[in-house]
Amino acid sequence: MSSPVLPSHSRVRPLGLAQVSLTGGFWHERQAVNASATLAHCESWMERLGWLANFDRVADGTTGPDRPGWPFSDSEVYKLLEALAWESYRSGDPGAEAAIKRLTARIARAQDPDGYLNTCYGHPGRPPRYSDLEGGHELYNTGHLLQAAVARLRTHGEDDLVRLARRAADHVCRVFGPDGRAGICGHPEIEVGLAEFGRATGEDRYVEQARLFLDRRGHGTLRDIPLGRAYFQDDVPVREAEVWRGHAVRALYLAAGAVDVAVERGDDDLLRAVERQWERSVARRTYITGGMGSRHQDEGFGEDWELPPDRAYCETCAGVASVMVSWRLLLATGDVRYADLIERTWYNVIAASPSADGRAFFYANPLHQRVPGRPADPDEVSPRAEGGTRAAWFDVSCCPTNVARTLAGLHGYLATSDDDGLQIHQYAPATIRATLPGGREAAVEVETGYPATGTVRVRIAADAAAPWTLALRVPAWAEGATLSDGGGDGGVRPVAPGVAEVRRAFRAGEVITLDLPVRPRLTRPDPRVDAVRGCVAVERGPEVLCAESGDLPDPAALDALVIDAGAGVRAGPDGGALVRALLPALQDRPWPYTAYRPGTTDRPAHRPASGGGAGWFDLPLRPYHSWARRGPAAMRVWLPVSTPRPPEGE
Amino acid sequence: MSSPVLPSHSRVRPLGLAQVSLTGGFWHERQAVNASATLAHCESWMERLGWLANFDRVADGTTGPDRPGWPFSDSEVYKLLEALAWESYRSGDPGAEAAIKRLTARIARAQDPDGYLNTCYGHPGRPPRYSDLEGGHELYNTGHLLQAAVARLRTHGEDDLVRLARRAADHVCRVFGPDGRAGICGHPEIEVGLAEFGRATGEDRYVEQARLFLDRRGHGTLRDIPLGRAYFQDDVPVREAEVWRGHAVRALYLAAGAVDVAVERGDDDLLRAVERQWERSVARRTYITGGMGSRHQDEGFGEDWELPPDRAYCETCAGVASVMVSWRLLLATGDVRYADLIERTWYNVIAASPSADGRAFFYANPLHQRVPGRPADPDEVSPRAEGGTRAAWFDVSCCPTNVARTLAGLHGYLATSDDDGLQIHQYAPATIRATLPGGREAAVEVETGYPATGTVRVRIAADAAAPWTLALRVPAWAEGATLSDGGGDGGVRPVAPGVAEVRRAFRAGEVITLDLPVRPRLTRPDPRVDAVRGCVAVERGPEVLCAESGDLPDPAALDALVIDAGAGVRAGPDGGALVRALLPALQDRPWPYTAYRPGTTDRPAHRPASGGGAGWFDLPLRPYHSWARRGPAAMRVWLPVSTPRPPEGE
Repeated sequence: MSSPVLPSHSRVRPLGLAQVSLTGGFWHERQAVNASATLAHCESWMERLGWLANFDRVADGTTGPDRPGWPFSDSEVYKLLEALAWESYRSGDPGAEAAIKRLTARIARAQDPDGYLNTCYGHPGRPPRYSDLEGGHELYNTGHLLQAAVARLRTHGEDDLVRLARRAADHVCRVFGPDGRAGICGHPEIEVGLAEFGRATGEDRYVEQARLFLDRRGHGTLRDIPLGRAYFQDDVPVREAEVWRGHAVRALYLAAGAVDVAVERGDDDLLRAVERQWERSVARRTYITGGMGSRHQDEGFGEDWELPPDRAYCETCAGVASVMVSWRLLLATGDVRYADLIERTWYNVIAASPSADGRAFFYANPLHQRVPGRPADPDEVSPRAEGGTRAAWFDVSCCPTNVARTLAGLHGYLATSDDDGLQIHQYAPATIRATLPGGREAAVEVETGYPATGTVRVRIAADAAAPWTLALRVPAWAEGATLSDGGGDGGVRPVAPGVAEVRRAFRAGEVITLDLPVRPRLTRPDPRVDAVRGCVAVERGPEVLCAESGDLPDPAALDALVIDAGAGVRAGPDGGALVRALLPALQDRPWPYTAYRPGTTDRPAHRPASGGGAGWFDLPLRPYHSWARRGPAAMRVWLPVSTPRPPEGE
Repeated sequence: MSSPVLPSHSRVRPLGLAQVSLTGGFWHERQAVNASATLAHCESWMERLGWLANFDRVADGTTGPDRPGWPFSDSEVYKLLEALAWESYRSGDPGAEAAIKRLTARIARAQDPDGYLNTCYGHPGRPPRYSDLEGGHELYNTGHLLQAAVARLRTHGEDDLVRLARRAADHVCRVFGPDGRAGICGHPEIEVGLAEFGRATGEDRYVEQARLFLDRRGHGTLRDIPLGRAYFQDDVPVREAEVWRGHAVRALYLAAGAVDVAVERGDDDLLRAVERQWERSVARRTYITGGMGSRHQDEGFGEDWELPPDRAYCETCAGVASVMVSWRLLLATGDVRYADLIERTWYNVIAASPSADGRAFFYANPLHQRVPGRPADPDEVSPRAEGGTRAAWFDVSCCPTNVARTLAGLHGYLATSDDDGLQIHQYAPATIRATLPGGREAAVEVETGYPATGTVRVRIAADAAAPWTLALRVPAWAEGATLSDGGGDGGVRPVAPGVAEVRRAFRAGEVITLDLPVRPRLTRPDPRVDAVRGCVAVERGPEVLCAESGDLPDPAALDALVIDAGAGVRAGPDGGALVRALLPALQDRPWPYTAYRPGTTDRPAHRPASGGGAGWFDLPLRPYHSWARRGPAAMRVWLPVSTPRPPEGE
């Protein structure tokens, strides 16, 4: 079946990509831009920079010390191939199919006779194979190759890409198998690649090799580095770890592989370990956007509660990886909290990255930008992973192809099924169809303007001979949601966050309507999140909103901004919100420490907006995912709250 | 004259190290530990790691690819030499003198016939000379060599060290002079080294070479790097820059050199530029500790108001460099605001670094440590520059020798003189003597328990034939200070922060007493310092205080701590303070986003301490400079303020 992740058994089952299709709306639009612009954009940049020619040079025996790109540039080609595989299947676009064949042919020529495939190591003028497991990314590259091959196998069947991937996987198993070198890769990815390749090919030895890599990790198997072994999760075995730490993408790819192995091996201890890590990391090390990674230094998680908005790294790829983990946990457990985090991450990390035209990307996704980014040159490779500017391409360009492969297969994450029915986790205009045991056809059409509007109509598309259960996820934020069952009693009933279920022998044409309260709402941080104390954020449905300097006199105004949280928040233009805001005049003290003053409170008291105080104005807040689309801007998600001062005369 | 910095002209003049000596107290104790432990500790580690043997290998022609240490390890030897020179002069310790001769002999053997002196470049098996100006640190090393030679020349006179430094400086002038290669060093330091060497030798061409390096910088002279050219201040010419940015130590060494050149060239525009940079950087990019450097990633300044306490880098070396800049600006302008920042930096950065035994050091000086550091192994080289643990030595070990050279010459920064009198800037038990024009002897003895107590007695030690002015700095925080003039009217008068002056023909034995209010006080952040909104800090005299987990049930308790700022702050044990504190029970919500909740305020309301609320206790705060001396600890300087809740029944 054609699904991004296919466990051999699970609490709920993924649907095949042929069983779900997006028919319009927020994500359909992004899939279309991905198909029409991003895929070709990625291939074109990799051609231009010589990352594709690296394969030709291996084939032609012309490698040397001057190879362009980082050691992991091969993986970008493989991630693009994965994206093309999903896209070819989704749309039947002959251009995507041609690109797959074109790229596969060049890659195939570069494979060594023994299956080894890498353009950075192991050829004339290059360092020897596996001579730098800490930093060389060889197995990481192979992991992405396997993921691409899995996509191809599930959407097309055996072809040259699958065959060369098999040879590469066999090579890895020979070199690093039980009787081989007891090494692991500094960047996890081979684990999830092998596990899924084992599922897709039905060959368990690949899963077993993934298990071996997992079990070797966490014992100081790799050399120590200045950032410490936690950087690549070689500090604590994955089944003993309490929380995610170190490099975020590494931690999350590893966790995804761990879930796959746990599920295939029936290793409940390992599954519970990842669930615990998810719980603590989501509770204490995750941004309101779903973003992960609090530190630029190591692109990593910080300590518990270390969630600075301005230096939030929140790498786009960590968002992709987080979705990989949560989806696997959702399949394994059926617990919709994992779908909840996926939605948060989709709207506020994944959707934030690409520009409207699909040809520029955010790498880091900070929640506070003090100084507007520089305008991006569409012809320039950005050497930096800072936030603030969507760049056409990066020196380390992991994010564009990761966004591409995620968007191309995104409809695969909308719904699941089990023996009893259909579970819809994400809301978008779509058709969804599952065949349940006993020949019951669970087919629905979803109609919604979500997330702009909160009404989700699920129209039954086929008569059912026997009862089945339609389960609709009610997001964690959706207090006050209601469900009206047009085919049942017709009444409207409140539904609590979690899951709302309707079970019967549905008839075609019946409509079940979920109404989610997408009006803007205020959100406060836990007192332990020091970096945003005294602030509130505004969310609307699954979208985090933000203030941008384009709506203020100048970028520095955002530094002084306060809002009257007591005045609440109203719906605003463009799917946004309005808050009452004030720009107090703040002066630098001439001498010498403006930043610190005698006194007991940092918060100046202001006459509240309702008290007739002058200077208050309606500040529009807009979806965070589209910030800086109007041009470089300062921005903030967390808004300092004014301390009320009694009206004059009291 | 034997002074660390000797401009050819200045608003106020430094005193020679023979004119000032510490007779006891806080800094005298640290000078003693530095002399008895730190200097030998540094030499011993550099012997052990082969950093000294690198010089022998050059001399013996046995260099090769496997050289131990970073390219800048030579500079550590030179910084130690500078420290030894000041120390030898200060104490007359024959051990220090012997070490100077011992080290000089080994260095001298490594110098090439043309004056080039570097153990990393330009010898068999090593990269060619000046082949990596961005990262090679060759001129940086030479700059430190020149600073060591300056110390030696001013405290001893011409010797082998001075002679070899002269040859090295001449080599630099030949290679990089007006007709030479128009290069600069990726790490500024050669500028300040050359300028001071020109002053000490009386040869202006060294100053001119420093000017040339300064003027070349800021035009994209170096190659771009992923962190950007701001990292090494090659983005904007120093005279056009508005603020310090990029790598903090680089920015500050450059600024120190710029002041030296500005003063020697009478270049007031350049001097004003550095003053402006100081003003904005101190106002908006400096921690309450005086620490500079908000980012680990590039060891650099952040944007304005970006001052996270937990990820504060505040490298010890940046504190050293900040003192270098402020001292030069103080001499050039006489403005005591510069002395004020020196004091803040001395007590809260420099003093924080060394352990009580002088054999372990903080590299980074964060203001909030969430998880206690690991206990340090006195036999281990720390690969990391994290805060929390004082390490015996570091892989990048710039801080220990920088602390050593600062402490050894620290008495040189206590006071200055001008034609009219004596200015005392820092308070410590000391004797200070200056000869003023007209043969007036300005000699005093300072008696004080500062900073533990705030009374500073300045006893006149010699009769003056004619009037002179005794100027005493009143720190910026010292609102309510008083001066009593025992030799004048005997009355006590209030003196405002800035300078308090007494002018007359003093008689020996007269005592002028400055009383500084060193009781603990609350300090609040500017509303734009987002990272510490809703918090207060407690200071006591020049010392910043902090809370440590050793005074709480467990390290995590610091995460939840709130204090009742309305209850004020009282004097506490060990030169500390007491605040009323509460540890509210905070629970992680089971599902899923503990960090964020619906609502309008993050601050739980508590019954105030005065309202009889249960759970409030006296929390001791202690000087930040001594944190973690009792063992690994969590720590915080900024304390969240409780929101008052009305007493029950109202």
